[in-house]
Amino acid sequence: MSRELYVAIPGPTPVVRSIQDEMGREIQAFGDPRFVKDYLELIEGLGGIVNSSGQTFALAGTGTIAMEMAVANTAKRGDNALLISHGFFGDRFVGICSRKSINTDVLRAPWGEIVPVDEIDKKLSEKQYAIITVSHVDTSTGVLSPLKELGEMLKKHPETLFIVDGVAATGGEFTDFDAMGIDVLFTASQKAFGVCPGMFMLFASQRAHERRNALGTIPEYYVDFLNWLPVMKDPSKFFSTPSINLVWALKESMRLIKTEGMDLRHKRHFKNGRAMQKAFEALGFKVLANPLNRAVTLSNLVYPEGLEDAKFRNALMDEGIIVASGIGAYFGKMCRIGHMGNVTENDMLTILGALERALNICGILVPYGTGLGVYQSEMAK
Amino acid sequence: MSRELYVAIPGPTPVVRSIQDEMGREIQAFGDPRFVKDYLELIEGLGGIVNSSGQTFALAGTGTIAMEMAVANTAKRGDNALLISHGFFGDRFVGICSRKSINTDVLRAPWGEIVPVDEIDKKLSEKQYAIITVSHVDTSTGVLSPLKELGEMLKKHPETLFIVDGVAATGGEFTDFDAMGIDVLFTASQKAFGVCPGMFMLFASQRAHERRNALGTIPEYYVDFLNWLPVMKDPSKFFSTPSINLVWALKESMRLIKTEGMDLRHKRHFKNGRAMQKAFEALGFKVLANPLNRAVTLSNLVYPEGLEDAKFRNALMDEGIIVASGIGAYFGKMCRIGHMGNVTENDMLTILGALERALNICGILVPYGTGLGVYQSEMAK
Repeated sequence: MSRELYVAIPGPTPVVRSIQDEMGREIQAFGDPRFVKDYLELIEGLGGIVNSSGQTFALAGTGTIAMEMAVANTAKRGDNALLISHGFFGDRFVGICSRKSINTDVLRAPWGEIVPVDEIDKKLSEKQYAIITVSHVDTSTGVLSPLKELGEMLKKHPETLFIVDGVAATGGEFTDFDAMGIDVLFTASQKAFGVCPGMFMLFASQRAHERRNALGTIPEYYVDFLNWLPVMKDPSKFFSTPSINLVWALKESMRLIKTEGMDLRHKRHFKNGRAMQKAFEALGFKVLANPLNRAVTLSNLVYPEGLEDAKFRNALMDEGIIVASGIGAYFGKMCRIGHMGNVTENDMLTILGALERALNICGILVPYGTGLGVYQSEMAK
Repeated sequence: MSRELYVAIPGPTPVVRSIQDEMGREIQAFGDPRFVKDYLELIEGLGGIVNSSGQTFALAGTGTIAMEMAVANTAKRGDNALLISHGFFGDRFVGICSRKSINTDVLRAPWGEIVPVDEIDKKLSEKQYAIITVSHVDTSTGVLSPLKELGEMLKKHPETLFIVDGVAATGGEFTDFDAMGIDVLFTASQKAFGVCPGMFMLFASQRAHERRNALGTIPEYYVDFLNWLPVMKDPSKFFSTPSINLVWALKESMRLIKTEGMDLRHKRHFKNGRAMQKAFEALGFKVLANPLNRAVTLSNLVYPEGLEDAKFRNALMDEGIIVASGIGAYFGKMCRIGHMGNVTENDMLTILGALERALNICGILVPYGTGLGVYQSEMAK
């Protein structure tokens, strides 16, 4: 293990050199006019990536803090929350809400499937919910939620704010904050943005701000919208020290994304993700998520019979890539592979090549070139 | 402003090359056995720097999150908190506690002075307090709190947990967590540790953990000790993605600190800080903090008569250094200069040289060499 391992987990994703260079740059004071300008440009520019006309927050922290920020600013003790769970991270909202004394109802799909939009509609008609939460892509299952249909349906329930966990999706899966009627969307630096972990981005609609104002004083401090709003408008103001180098790294990521263009970036992720999934299937894996609601940013691969988890993942490491384990009931039965962000076709060949070798080492005899060939053919279409 | 500005604010402090290199390193998966080992070594090693036999947390976030974490795990709604304020950051605990419905009593000193330990003792004897909070060094005033005396006095009040904000101190000012009877100490990466902002470190005593357990469910999620304890013991477990590169950067910082040795590091900060303060005074500034309770990690310089703030700080920028403004009533009347972390004597000459030039540009005519000479003489002693 002295050589570098290719990071094929669903985040952190590989970081390109120009972003690494921003990470390692000489420090500046957070009040330095050059940094203030850089930070403001980041905050002003990020909304374009998800077509948000709301307020962007780009802060030190992780996706988990962002989840807490989304809830803390939109619901209070005694409110009702409807949580749509397509896996581990959908469920995570239960713990966050219930410790804040927010009542939760959870609609869960079998892993790999989505909760039908009609069922959600019905539930929302039965009771008044302050918020509904859903993961755009749940990394535990690779399930993609139908945000467009959800947003359409939610027009019938204007009292319910639409909270979307975009951690494993935003910047890779198509997202239109305004058109989808999202009220709070958040994501983290280390996924489709291809930056080292340590920052999160949160987008909040006008309705979300109105809700925040109506809540009065909230118990949470760091994640309170109201503490950050003045800084997001004018980063020369201080609330808590910005993570200078990560701000630069994220700004470089934003530049790369805008240079590529969101439309082409989504198309690239879609074509690449689908090609990878065909290749995975050709190698004998079952992709957990139903094809009708399958993410393109990552794939969750249920093992063919006879493949032993620890042995396989160790073989993959020996062959130069690291993948993530399955979660929950799928631990030991599945691995998870990310293919989002600033990854290239050559990276995909690295992943598929290692998978082919490791399968053969583990006694699952697939002819060399099986996955690689399918991928090449799909990408050539 | 095309050249680099020397960062002479009280944090972020200048980052040395070997730490920058860790920031810019190729990413690894958070489950990579090499990263798990690195993170565990960081967590296990940090306690030695402050002589803590308690649990260390090293997490993505800022000093502000750490403040919230300290309070959220040690006090609940309806509890009483005694807040000792030596400036802006001492006062910040008021906002954090009161929004959590923790009752606060605040003892404030005039800026530059400390609240007498006797007065605190008296207050603690009148009412039962769950926690007492104090900034080791308050960056707004440069005041150093008498932690040793406070810890000694607090033995009489064993029901009150001792919370110390070490953001502008730890790693520079002498700190003995165990001997001083501290229950929660926290600091941030960008101060005396000399790492880019984005991580905080928090140390918690056995008593703090007992208090946390007694609180039952708390409203806060990200900062709950109980969510992180399993990860701090075994970083192969997941709660929220660690900020990989910042973990490495902090580990390199820890290596540098341990190589220097804490005793020598404290002596270096003390000698350098006092020499800088004599030089500042020779240049006509008044150091805000009373000499009896004056930090060595930074200095808050009240301007001589006739010196105009904006003009002076702009002149300093033109001369190659950036300093922080005064805060609150001292805005416009003071600047704040950091001299902690991995700074060198040459850096100090950079600061003093720019101060001499900027003073002269602003019409405060000091002979060149005045501050530089005093500093050199003091350091030669």
